[in-house]
Amino acid sequence: MNKEVLKDLSYGVYVIGSKKDNRDVGCIANSVMQVTSSPATVAVSINVDNYTNQAIKESGIFTCMVLPTDIDSEVIGTFGFKTSKDVDKFVPFETLDVDGYPILMDAISYLKCQVINTIENGTHTIFIGEIINSDKLNDKEVMTYAYYHEVKKGKSPAKAPTYIEEKTVKGKKKYICKICGYVHEVDELPPDFKCPICGVGRDMFEEIS
Amino acid sequence: MNKEVLKDLSYGVYVIGSKKDNRDVGCIANSVMQVTSSPATVAVSINVDNYTNQAIKESGIFTCMVLPTDIDSEVIGTFGFKTSKDVDKFVPFETLDVDGYPILMDAISYLKCQVINTIENGTHTIFIGEIINSDKLNDKEVMTYAYYHEVKKGKSPAKAPTYIEEKTVKGKKKYICKICGYVHEVDELPPDFKCPICGVGRDMFEEIS
Repeated sequence: MNKEVLKDLSYGVYVIGSKKDNRDVGCIANSVMQVTSSPATVAVSINVDNYTNQAIKESGIFTCMVLPTDIDSEVIGTFGFKTSKDVDKFVPFETLDVDGYPILMDAISYLKCQVINTIENGTHTIFIGEIINSDKLNDKEVMTYAYYHEVKKGKSPAKAPTYIEEKTVKGKKKYICKICGYVHEVDELPPDFKCPICGVGRDMFEEIS
Repeated sequence: MNKEVLKDLSYGVYVIGSKKDNRDVGCIANSVMQVTSSPATVAVSINVDNYTNQAIKESGIFTCMVLPTDIDSEVIGTFGFKTSKDVDKFVPFETLDVDGYPILMDAISYLKCQVINTIENGTHTIFIGEIINSDKLNDKEVMTYAYYHEVKKGKSPAKAPTYIEEKTVKGKKKYICKICGYVHEVDELPPDFKCPICGVGRDMFEEIS
């Protein structure tokens, strides 16, 4: 078995929201797919150790927000690299209230789903939700997981804004973000530098070459 | 509810294969996602009316082939717009034998999965399969469903090879493929014309303007 093959599956990048003990919680997911069209249902796979997993089980509701390519890196940092147990993840961002659930204003579109089936698969739960509300907020470009992955790894197409970070320039140093793995190449990382992917500060970077 | 939102979910384009009554069968799917990484499992959603659905239920095995952007349009036409009940879909194409299952040589990579869970959801079944074999065949560009959708509708990015078909040229006629909906604009459709998406002949096109 060659596990590299799994990287060839295509996904988007989503924020999955829910509620636990009356608090808004959420996380990043990429494993989201439509299951049926009538009624419209979607499936999402969430790690059982994830706080949002427990929240969906308790509330029976999840939201799904489609992220655009130009999403604020702090959205990825907050929802992807922190836990809702400690942080009120939606607070720093502009949101829209949809029947009591916050929706990121910067998302392209959202779904609000009622869980109709829950399938446990070892480390992950598949929640199947019937869409009870959904709308488009804008026509921005959908971020695919492949796009995110390339940017995250600092590898970008030649025409992408991040391309300069791919060049190997003699005398430059490489710094890796200990939180998300983003690599930045520069003479010296300034003290106010923030990870463009996960939003953490200079102290979370270490030199790798 | 705004169903347009469902178009914002990202997918790849896959051929799902299986066996029924000792015959190789298959269909196109886009709803495929990884569920867990250890063991490596994937979920695929297949319409219950699909011949391949029955085959997977009977054999407990499915294959999943990742299609590249340059896939022969006849692969889409054969696997997406014909039924395995009538057609031996793999026969016209070059294949690789993987433990008795044919894999399209033009696919980027493949997974062979043993079904470990089957969830019925009205019109569709979700099969969860544990990967028992997988490999990469090449490094071609993965075709996303969005890419396929744009090409299928005859709408293409300005730099895509199909862009010329978007131009509205005075005096030209538009022909639509009655099988897959592809629109071709030309003076007169030649008798040997084949749909670049689903591979059907000239007789399946009709003039729309």
